[in-house]
Amino acid sequence: MALEAIRALESAEIALGYKTYLDLIADLLRDKIVIASGMRKEVERCQEAIGYALRGRNTVLVSSGDAGIYGMAGLVLDICRKKQLNVMEWDDEGRGGTPGFHLRIIPGIPAFNAAASLLGAPLMHDFAAVSLSDHLTPWQVIEKRLWAAAEADFVLAIYNPRSRSRPDLLEKARQIILRHRPPETPAAIVRQAMREGQWKCLTTLAGLDVGEVDMQSVVIVGNLRTYIWQGWMVTPRGYLDKYSV
Amino acid sequence: MALEAIRALESAEIALGYKTYLDLIADLLRDKIVIASGMRKEVERCQEAIGYALRGRNTVLVSSGDAGIYGMAGLVLDICRKKQLNVMEWDDEGRGGTPGFHLRIIPGIPAFNAAASLLGAPLMHDFAAVSLSDHLTPWQVIEKRLWAAAEADFVLAIYNPRSRSRPDLLEKARQIILRHRPPETPAAIVRQAMREGQWKCLTTLAGLDVGEVDMQSVVIVGNLRTYIWQGWMVTPRGYLDKYSV
Repeated sequence: MALEAIRALESAEIALGYKTYLDLIADLLRDKIVIASGMRKEVERCQEAIGYALRGRNTVLVSSGDAGIYGMAGLVLDICRKKQLNVMEWDDEGRGGTPGFHLRIIPGIPAFNAAASLLGAPLMHDFAAVSLSDHLTPWQVIEKRLWAAAEADFVLAIYNPRSRSRPDLLEKARQIILRHRPPETPAAIVRQAMREGQWKCLTTLAGLDVGEVDMQSVVIVGNLRTYIWQGWMVTPRGYLDKYSV
Repeated sequence: MALEAIRALESAEIALGYKTYLDLIADLLRDKIVIASGMRKEVERCQEAIGYALRGRNTVLVSSGDAGIYGMAGLVLDICRKKQLNVMEWDDEGRGGTPGFHLRIIPGIPAFNAAASLLGAPLMHDFAAVSLSDHLTPWQVIEKRLWAAAEADFVLAIYNPRSRSRPDLLEKARQIILRHRPPETPAAIVRQAMREGQWKCLTTLAGLDVGEVDMQSVVIVGNLRTYIWQGWMVTPRGYLDKYSV
């Protein structure tokens, strides 16, 4: 967890978030007003957080990973724009002097970086992050991105790879990638990276067991040069083509 | 900075890294053996770090951002593989019991997340990270990836966008992206994100001043839906198409 996020939490009065994520940081929330909500309550949660902040309360809205990667940062700004609020940049020094709504986005360690670090170094070269959730994005758009990323040999970091309401999209994605990459391309599933219940599986594109993947998983598919060695998944950047060791 | 990285540094005996990055964390290195090296010394640096670790010294190799994103994690594993070393996973509990070389990759906040957080939420939807450095990657490969990412409407996070030895590649990249996106597409430059000398510029693809970009910058180009509002750059995920506020 980032030190900056811990400090922001320490100074906050109110913390809002998805229940599962708030439970992970319960230790940091002991003296706060904690407002937990469920999945698909993102719009309400952000509106509530904005409401508190507008009333001058020091409010933290918690996302997992990085709030700017499929997290809540964008939705907060979307809502502020829709409501025509005046959103100022947070400035530690000047804040006391300027009344109004100050916003700061605190970056974190994205889920795919946590997952990659457990596997080795699969994201060492150009990569694309694609969410398979078709809740807000049409499947044709997702399909086009998968196709383009696979064709241009990007490493792929797949978010929201599978859920009960859309069990088949990961298999569709796998088939698209297989059009451009050999079946033996390294691939991996990481569930609950750096949390209780952490689990990982190194395999190949052909061997990827879609049934092992859930909503809390990240799937990483290597590029044409990615290798698996001694249980480590690595995408070389090309140093050893140029330099000898 | 991630708490896990701070803790690893605290317990380390030796820290190696690129001088500029070690200087940023000088406070954490006071009681360590510090071995700084220059740019283009990556292979020597990793070999030296591996050498110390093999001799049983608690060694930290420092990257900026996330060590697994254009950092040193992959090169360490490349070298270990080439030298046919036996690299075991670091295990806090079991380490004392198993002799040998134990490796742990500690994830961090990637530079593009730090940059994005200062701009607002430009990476809220599918994005591609592309390095423009043609030192280890042929320009044709980079060009193909830029083309594919631009065509499939990925947000683009451009690493190593420009250096003295290759001043023209960012302009070439901009021209490729302009084939697929309108000139008014939001774009941004962030230099030295979250460091002394931090500087950012919100602009458009047409207005992007390549001359302002250096090696320490990240350039972010929005997708077809990215907007700039009150000085914030945001890529909507689509919540407000579906839900009303």
